[in-house]
Amino acid sequence: MNVTVNGRTRHFRTVTFDRARNSVLLIEQRLLPHEFKIVPAKSFKETAAAIRDMIVRGAGAIGATAAYGLAQGALAFRGNDLKKFSEHVEIVFQTLKATRPTAVDPVNAMNDVRREMARGKSVGEKQSLALAAAEEFANEDVRHCEEIGRHGAKLIRDGMKILTHCNAGWLAFVDIGTATAPMYAAQAAGKKFHVFCDETRPRSQGATLTAWELAQQKISHQIIADNAAGHLMQRGEIDLVIVGSDRTLGRTGEVTNKIGTYTKAVLAARHKIPFYVAIPLSTIDWNLKQGFDIPIEERSESEVLGAWGIVESPKSTVRSQKLRRYVRVANPSSGACNPGFDVTPAELITGIITPCGIIKPQELWRRRHELGSGG
Amino acid sequence: MNVTVNGRTRHFRTVTFDRARNSVLLIEQRLLPHEFKIVPAKSFKETAAAIRDMIVRGAGAIGATAAYGLAQGALAFRGNDLKKFSEHVEIVFQTLKATRPTAVDPVNAMNDVRREMARGKSVGEKQSLALAAAEEFANEDVRHCEEIGRHGAKLIRDGMKILTHCNAGWLAFVDIGTATAPMYAAQAAGKKFHVFCDETRPRSQGATLTAWELAQQKISHQIIADNAAGHLMQRGEIDLVIVGSDRTLGRTGEVTNKIGTYTKAVLAARHKIPFYVAIPLSTIDWNLKQGFDIPIEERSESEVLGAWGIVESPKSTVRSQKLRRYVRVANPSSGACNPGFDVTPAELITGIITPCGIIKPQELWRRRHELGSGG
Repeated sequence: MNVTVNGRTRHFRTVTFDRARNSVLLIEQRLLPHEFKIVPAKSFKETAAAIRDMIVRGAGAIGATAAYGLAQGALAFRGNDLKKFSEHVEIVFQTLKATRPTAVDPVNAMNDVRREMARGKSVGEKQSLALAAAEEFANEDVRHCEEIGRHGAKLIRDGMKILTHCNAGWLAFVDIGTATAPMYAAQAAGKKFHVFCDETRPRSQGATLTAWELAQQKISHQIIADNAAGHLMQRGEIDLVIVGSDRTLGRTGEVTNKIGTYTKAVLAARHKIPFYVAIPLSTIDWNLKQGFDIPIEERSESEVLGAWGIVESPKSTVRSQKLRRYVRVANPSSGACNPGFDVTPAELITGIITPCGIIKPQELWRRRHELGSGG
Repeated sequence: MNVTVNGRTRHFRTVTFDRARNSVLLIEQRLLPHEFKIVPAKSFKETAAAIRDMIVRGAGAIGATAAYGLAQGALAFRGNDLKKFSEHVEIVFQTLKATRPTAVDPVNAMNDVRREMARGKSVGEKQSLALAAAEEFANEDVRHCEEIGRHGAKLIRDGMKILTHCNAGWLAFVDIGTATAPMYAAQAAGKKFHVFCDETRPRSQGATLTAWELAQQKISHQIIADNAAGHLMQRGEIDLVIVGSDRTLGRTGEVTNKIGTYTKAVLAARHKIPFYVAIPLSTIDWNLKQGFDIPIEERSESEVLGAWGIVESPKSTVRSQKLRRYVRVANPSSGACNPGFDVTPAELITGIITPCGIIKPQELWRRRHELGSGG
């Protein structure tokens, strides 16, 4: 999407590939929202480090980064020995896989690349096929988000006020994003609307990443405390809710997403406000039988007990440093309980916005053959 | 309640009076939860400054502080001239009243003191009556909280997990508090239970003040992000909710309280978890016809866009300074919407815990003659 740097607006993807320098180019997401910078990962080891150190995060984005990293590693091989090449590629694969042990996206993406490479007869052919497959993975991620936008934009009418939670924006994918895709498509169609971004404590992805995206895209928006959405709904200030999902159960239509999503769904149901979840098909889990079985990650107490931000001088708003610092907010002798995700039942969800159209959560299973192929 | 300083546990009130030094003694609440300190206000002007600068905050606490401040000012008068004394007292009254122009508690408290003073025939008699009335105001505040505790403690059973929001604890009153009163009474009765403190963004009073109170009182507790309560309720981890209120409508039973209270009430109703509101009778508004008419204060954007905390050194947890600093968390080019309070309808409230017993919100109006007298 668009980013304005020093007054110039340009289009960027979260991750791209520089063929001439055999480098993966990434938005350094740890500096956002306070600084925008593209950093090159000049070897597959640097690409692995970028995933591990969270320079890049988000399902689609780390999938594409790993796919490019595998191609990058393959392209760095010199020689024609197919056996040595194969051993080298295996090392690259394992190095990239080890970066985020629980994430499925890098492995799925790299399996796509390996499958294509298998068709090549020489090292040179396999190298070309690897890069083409990585590019195709990234382009497909973008196309899926475009389709989500095309379907979801129909839900947005002029003058609407939309609530979103956490960041399911373009920074989490290669471009466009999922929950944000309908907004960007509606904007492109000339519609005017306003977005309330839930701050999304404890990690504040709404206040930092989603707000940054919307500001860059010049979409009218305000950040709200997670406590405020209920009041705004009660006063008729919210017309539509769109969120993303980390895992959607194909059998039940239950949606796992960032902690607080369930609360917003309960509030939306009480106020008869449509509640939509935008997802790529890759996040549908066709195996799990019920949401209660989803293990909910208990994250570090420090996230709840403090916050990360730029220290501002008391006398001015000049930042003492660009990198964020941690401040302890809470009582020092108290601990915290910090579940990272929650599960929203199908009954609270108006529809799932997929690249294949908007589907009732209860309809996913019946349409599994059409959806299960990955789009 | 109890505070442990340097290993010694002692009982403190939020505000007390030192007759020998004619000083109002206050807990310096701006330093909490990171430092505990009692500061003397040595003249009525210092007492007024303490209210204005938020050394003391909370309805009951500022009421008692103003009552003591009026007595303090009266006691500082030298001479026997009743007319001059009366003029002096009027200056003291106006000085204290001007500290928090929209708060009703200081004025109500000082009117109590003036009414008593009117019974005196000499300056000396009036001075004695003023101090006695201020002490009585503070003691009555404590008695009311004790009664709330006595009634509310019946709701707490061994092993329960209780949710509370914001701070309606003893720091907001002279002692004991309202939402916390049932917990302290249940603890005194030997019951074991666990409290989840909502962080209560944007000002984090739950993470700072309520958590500090519970830690001092050695009550088992954890801080949670405001996003987490819905998930915990869904998993059966919350048995009871108790919150305070800034204004309760006697005609409708609607409750105004810190932003996010309504959300917790909606969630509790969905999970059939009892939701109670603990209030002193002085906060019942017998005039207003509907909650929608309550003006909701729109507070500073900076509260949502950042946080106040102690900067911790990256290499250790040694604090670089005791005073809290503000960090900007959010995207710098985004704004915020920050309603300070919300209104919870009577249908979502299981009961109102008052000094006169637990009352259904819909029953307040029928019992107005019994309740309207102020207890």
